[in-house]
Amino acid sequence: MNSTDLQTLMTDLGKRARAAARSLALAPSADKDKALRAAAQAIRIDTGLILEANAKDMAAGEAKGLSAAMLDRLMLNVARVEAMAKGLEDIARLPDPVGRSLAEWTRPNGMHIARVAVPLGVIGIIYESRPNVTADAAALCLKSGNATILRGGSESFHSSQAILTALKGGFTACGLPADAVQMVPTTDREAVGVMLRLADYIDVIVPRGGKSLVERVVAESRIPLFQHLEGICHTYVDKAADLDMAKAVVLNAKMRRTGVCGATETLLVDAACAKTHLKPLVSMLLDAGCEVRGDHLAQEADCRTLPASEADWSTEYLDAVISVKVVDGVAAAVEHINTYGSHHTEAIITEDAGAAQTFLNGCDSAIVLWNASTQFADGGEFGMGAEIGISTGKMHARGPVGVEQLCTFKYVVKGNGQTRPG
Amino acid sequence: MNSTDLQTLMTDLGKRARAAARSLALAPSADKDKALRAAAQAIRIDTGLILEANAKDMAAGEAKGLSAAMLDRLMLNVARVEAMAKGLEDIARLPDPVGRSLAEWTRPNGMHIARVAVPLGVIGIIYESRPNVTADAAALCLKSGNATILRGGSESFHSSQAILTALKGGFTACGLPADAVQMVPTTDREAVGVMLRLADYIDVIVPRGGKSLVERVVAESRIPLFQHLEGICHTYVDKAADLDMAKAVVLNAKMRRTGVCGATETLLVDAACAKTHLKPLVSMLLDAGCEVRGDHLAQEADCRTLPASEADWSTEYLDAVISVKVVDGVAAAVEHINTYGSHHTEAIITEDAGAAQTFLNGCDSAIVLWNASTQFADGGEFGMGAEIGISTGKMHARGPVGVEQLCTFKYVVKGNGQTRPG
Repeated sequence: MNSTDLQTLMTDLGKRARAAARSLALAPSADKDKALRAAAQAIRIDTGLILEANAKDMAAGEAKGLSAAMLDRLMLNVARVEAMAKGLEDIARLPDPVGRSLAEWTRPNGMHIARVAVPLGVIGIIYESRPNVTADAAALCLKSGNATILRGGSESFHSSQAILTALKGGFTACGLPADAVQMVPTTDREAVGVMLRLADYIDVIVPRGGKSLVERVVAESRIPLFQHLEGICHTYVDKAADLDMAKAVVLNAKMRRTGVCGATETLLVDAACAKTHLKPLVSMLLDAGCEVRGDHLAQEADCRTLPASEADWSTEYLDAVISVKVVDGVAAAVEHINTYGSHHTEAIITEDAGAAQTFLNGCDSAIVLWNASTQFADGGEFGMGAEIGISTGKMHARGPVGVEQLCTFKYVVKGNGQTRPG
Repeated sequence: MNSTDLQTLMTDLGKRARAAARSLALAPSADKDKALRAAAQAIRIDTGLILEANAKDMAAGEAKGLSAAMLDRLMLNVARVEAMAKGLEDIARLPDPVGRSLAEWTRPNGMHIARVAVPLGVIGIIYESRPNVTADAAALCLKSGNATILRGGSESFHSSQAILTALKGGFTACGLPADAVQMVPTTDREAVGVMLRLADYIDVIVPRGGKSLVERVVAESRIPLFQHLEGICHTYVDKAADLDMAKAVVLNAKMRRTGVCGATETLLVDAACAKTHLKPLVSMLLDAGCEVRGDHLAQEADCRTLPASEADWSTEYLDAVISVKVVDGVAAAVEHINTYGSHHTEAIITEDAGAAQTFLNGCDSAIVLWNASTQFADGGEFGMGAEIGISTGKMHARGPVGVEQLCTFKYVVKGNGQTRPG
């Protein structure tokens, strides 16, 4: 497609989304929830069509030589389609985030001011191979009164289109606009560049995918982002840690799932307890099948430890690998984390409330935990319902981005003829 | 300065700011307030030096042929310096926005989660000729625990430097870091471009100035912004409006001060009350010395009305000029506002609660008022204390940006050894 046609196509998408957003912003909660349940039903009914489309994507993916991990992310089956439908119903059950009064007060002149939650408007989602993002993201946006423009990966193009058709059917059957959710109808790579410049029609972009996708979006976007670059998460075992608790939490933080963003990538151990705590922790990890790359003390603690290089302190392994370092107390742990970390999630294990407070205040991260596993970094685990992602940025949303974070607010002022003096 | 030197200079500024921000984030409220009062005192003591520096800027400005309006914005006198000092003391009296618990809850597994307000980090302020921005902006940032990098206009360079010296003296005397507030030490225009790319060291940029400054910053910045592009504000007089109230509010909304962003630029009148309300409103504005540019009905109402062109509906006059249009009820008013407005501030005058609700819900603007003047669009009038500006963007801060909006938050999780199952 030439660049003029692409610009026209994308601008048209944007205008339709903006018009749909105006109507969605005013949609009653009951209508939105009904539409989400209808979409869930439509997905169930379309299971055969969705799997047929997915088979096309899988065949093309195999022919292209996609890795086994990528093929697994791409693959749908009856259980995964049902999970998608159930996800929509779960989102329907969340409280409506729109219209909440976030604060209210009355001025001395009698004016009443309320800060009221309203939708952001139009959300652009740029994602890779997981076709279920199509349903999850569109549903979270709809629940929060936003229109969505989806740009899926070329690998999952047919699967996503089939899911989109089901969603649209459910939404329009309940009187919501067909343009509430749209998908960029081309796999042209240039379309992403055009999308990232549609600042008049898209209010926020959510890139969901690997580091190279996010880096491209960060570099090119003229639209604000909810971005998640990396999860270089730390667990610090303080001298006042209970060793049994430290072992249980560290093992879970690293090994429960090694591929999630909240997995601990670096273990920091207080020098003051290295003699008693370092060997049990390092050996436990090695025994559990984790590769350990450590400083010289960690290497001395267990000879299976490999030497860590400077690059290890800022590496997100997303695998059964951990870097281990002995630091000189809580202040040094905070300093290490703020220097090498990615401002995502950090935990301290200690029985000392003062040391905990120093750590919780000092780490410049979205989530800080005291005596709990970094693997809790998740909107669902926080009780926020489904999340569209975790933001490592500081603006607007930080940490899990759920339906409340997909809203902005307006000030609603009620008076009886007040004029401003002076 | 060559571009390598500029890059080195700006990166150094950024690194110092980041280090200062880490320490300011942990500074007790009492220390910050003491530092603000000390800075106010230092400004009073330095009044002579500040006025001397300002005289240099004024002489250079006159030689350069700056307009009378620009020279007035640049000019300091004893009263204006005292107002600056008093402004710092007012900010010291505000409650500390840092450390507030924004929400707290306990999970079924016993983990306690709190969303706690923390500083954003480093704020970059890019402004034009008003030297008082130096003190106001730095004080608001300090109160909210942020470090500041100021880039003032070349016209006010000497004045701003003298104010900065006084501020730094006050801050450091109270043990706060000298780099809490820094100023770009060159008037090189390229420095702004470098600053807008320092995403590792600056968390948010606030452009304060005219439309061309803001447009440049929006086009070039790789850092999130609190931006204020235009205030194309509307007042809609509904058929159920009380005419006396409508006259009082419209006169105030347009004429109290015509150069502020909350001034009404377009008056919309419901066709259903045009016969009774249009002429009194239009003639009142003309009698008050306001130029009226109207549609044919407004021209028929008073022959002094000039014809409005299409461009008038999207023009921010910032002057004693108003555009007037008759619209077909509240839905048409909302449609006009969402099409031509700048999402800033809009008012409806009506005694009909249903019409008011339609207007308040439908306008996609930061501030919507019912029976009150658009000139209330101001952090001080909202009871938020001083503001660093009004944001017409939707992300993070919308409307007045005060000390609370200069904060982000973190999630602080307290457990007793919880690990995540599954």
